[in-house]
Amino acid sequence: MKNLVILGSTGSVGKQVLEVIRTFPKNYKVVGIVAKNRTTELTSQIKEFRPRMVVLEENGQESLEKLVSYPWVNSVVVAIPGTVALKATLKAIEKKKRIFLATKEILVAAGPLISKALKKYKTRLLPLDSEHSAIFQCLRGEDERTVKRIILTCSGGPFRNWKKEDLKKVKKKQVLSHPVWKMGPKITVDSATLMNKGFEVLEAHYLFGLPLEKIEVLVHPEGIIHSMVEFNDGTIKALLSRPDMRFPIQYALFYPRRPKNSWENLDLAEIKNLSFQRPKTKTFPCLKYAYWAGKIGGTMPAALNFADEIAVEMFLKNKISFLDIPEIIKKILKTHKPIFNPGLKEILMVKDWVRGQLK
Amino acid sequence: MKNLVILGSTGSVGKQVLEVIRTFPKNYKVVGIVAKNRTTELTSQIKEFRPRMVVLEENGQESLEKLVSYPWVNSVVVAIPGTVALKATLKAIEKKKRIFLATKEILVAAGPLISKALKKYKTRLLPLDSEHSAIFQCLRGEDERTVKRIILTCSGGPFRNWKKEDLKKVKKKQVLSHPVWKMGPKITVDSATLMNKGFEVLEAHYLFGLPLEKIEVLVHPEGIIHSMVEFNDGTIKALLSRPDMRFPIQYALFYPRRPKNSWENLDLAEIKNLSFQRPKTKTFPCLKYAYWAGKIGGTMPAALNFADEIAVEMFLKNKISFLDIPEIIKKILKTHKPIFNPGLKEILMVKDWVRGQLK
Repeated sequence: MKNLVILGSTGSVGKQVLEVIRTFPKNYKVVGIVAKNRTTELTSQIKEFRPRMVVLEENGQESLEKLVSYPWVNSVVVAIPGTVALKATLKAIEKKKRIFLATKEILVAAGPLISKALKKYKTRLLPLDSEHSAIFQCLRGEDERTVKRIILTCSGGPFRNWKKEDLKKVKKKQVLSHPVWKMGPKITVDSATLMNKGFEVLEAHYLFGLPLEKIEVLVHPEGIIHSMVEFNDGTIKALLSRPDMRFPIQYALFYPRRPKNSWENLDLAEIKNLSFQRPKTKTFPCLKYAYWAGKIGGTMPAALNFADEIAVEMFLKNKISFLDIPEIIKKILKTHKPIFNPGLKEILMVKDWVRGQLK
Repeated sequence: MKNLVILGSTGSVGKQVLEVIRTFPKNYKVVGIVAKNRTTELTSQIKEFRPRMVVLEENGQESLEKLVSYPWVNSVVVAIPGTVALKATLKAIEKKKRIFLATKEILVAAGPLISKALKKYKTRLLPLDSEHSAIFQCLRGEDERTVKRIILTCSGGPFRNWKKEDLKKVKKKQVLSHPVWKMGPKITVDSATLMNKGFEVLEAHYLFGLPLEKIEVLVHPEGIIHSMVEFNDGTIKALLSRPDMRFPIQYALFYPRRPKNSWENLDLAEIKNLSFQRPKTKTFPCLKYAYWAGKIGGTMPAALNFADEIAVEMFLKNKISFLDIPEIIKKILKTHKPIFNPGLKEILMVKDWVRGQLK
């Protein structure tokens, strides 16, 4: 029985982690949850899972750090959007907890810091999102030096086949209806701009220690192949499942085991077709920006992350249009003077700087 | 440098093995080749690879056994269609050579014998065909006890979308034009009847020690996904490459390494679509017959194998029609009284019995 803390228990990933744990009540005990003040959801979670500790996000980052540090905590799910849980993640690494990561912003903003800490404290970080779980699974049993490239698949978002012109008139409601996955509003907007895929490129870069040139994005609207790895010998391994977060969540929670579950399986004869196309980076430039920021390094990926965070926030508040999001990000990246080898403080300061720029 | 013997060097697989070896001249030395009397091909192979020993198939099975037994032979490619190389394969296992198997008839006719010998002599048998190589690669690093099922993909052959009625008028030329792979005549006919896929089901059954209920066939006309493994947790691993035998051949020859090659890679954005459908066993009953023979066991799979061998021979000599092939196989299976736990002699005697039935 492992004692688990969930940072972000009422979000989309957090709830699905709880669903998986409900299926395997003998393996995990939820000892702590952190959530925003969604009272109904939170109350029912407390009733069902009876965690020892409940922390509201508004209590601040210090209480998160304290929560993940308790010696009776074995593992930590990080699933709060943005960089709220960044400090707590670093603390959990230091305390050698096993970490299940859903919040890609943490790796985007502070990838090298996290990688260094993981090495120093010999801690394991397992991805919860379907793409990185797929890559992690495809690398299983393989020599990582034989990887030629990683192919991150991408649904393409709701505007996959739209022209840039038509995107001018896009409404918030259209942006928030993702064709494959049901997720929170921030990540749904990021999926529509392809910024989410850009973040995933950076996440893969830090998580698997691969140069950006070895990471490609392929649009695959059906969302059945969750990602692929091509090896030196020209063969490709792919990981498939129904698009359901419970699969990668279960894989991470039980790694390296693969216990049985009774969730509906994939039937390719019923699905009939899997299709592929190259991403349209002219229409969706955020993807390019992510590669660019990653190549520069230093605090540039943090600037990318915070520029997107604030731009999406503005979009969701109806302050800017959909096409303003990449424009704002571009402007920030052009203006930002990166600090190299930044510490945590310097990374977090970028957020204030970006906010200042966008006032 | 490893010393390799190739049984069947002028056939389709044999020639492609030589192509791979040509790419890696420092790793393998061809010390012996066995071929039918295709003089031009054989002469040029002798000139290029300068093997110490050349044996013609017509010299008989004993010279094959002798050839694979030499102490300076490390590995043996078995790529002669039918059961001609069965005794030599068993001898190679006994002499602890590493075996690269392309001839599925050997496992179909004598699966349990081969499995027993492999265990007894602790010898490794690596598959050369794309489907079993794909499964072998998908199992890499995984716990075999967590396999829920194997999904063997199948091009469906040239008559995939034909109705049974229309198959009555099929001409030999149409049968011999496979949509994806260029292969010898026997296996091309077997691909059109789906008997080849039936053989592969049995091959997987013996090779991976999985019950037949865990082996499924899925039609995938593009021939890009070479097979898949579904695990207990509902996730599927798939192996993809361009349909080119050099990929699985290289994998086997260098296992567990994955050296670089410069062959053209797979570009899914160019291929655009992968499609899937269930096999039509009413139109192509040979697939069902294979499962049935496998479930009965004993000499029944051998009867299946020889019935098909002789029926295809008759078809290629224009003695019977395309639809007569499954009819003949069905008749033989209905008549055959299997011997259980057969020895090599009993297995080989089934061939004479089948021939007697079809006179």
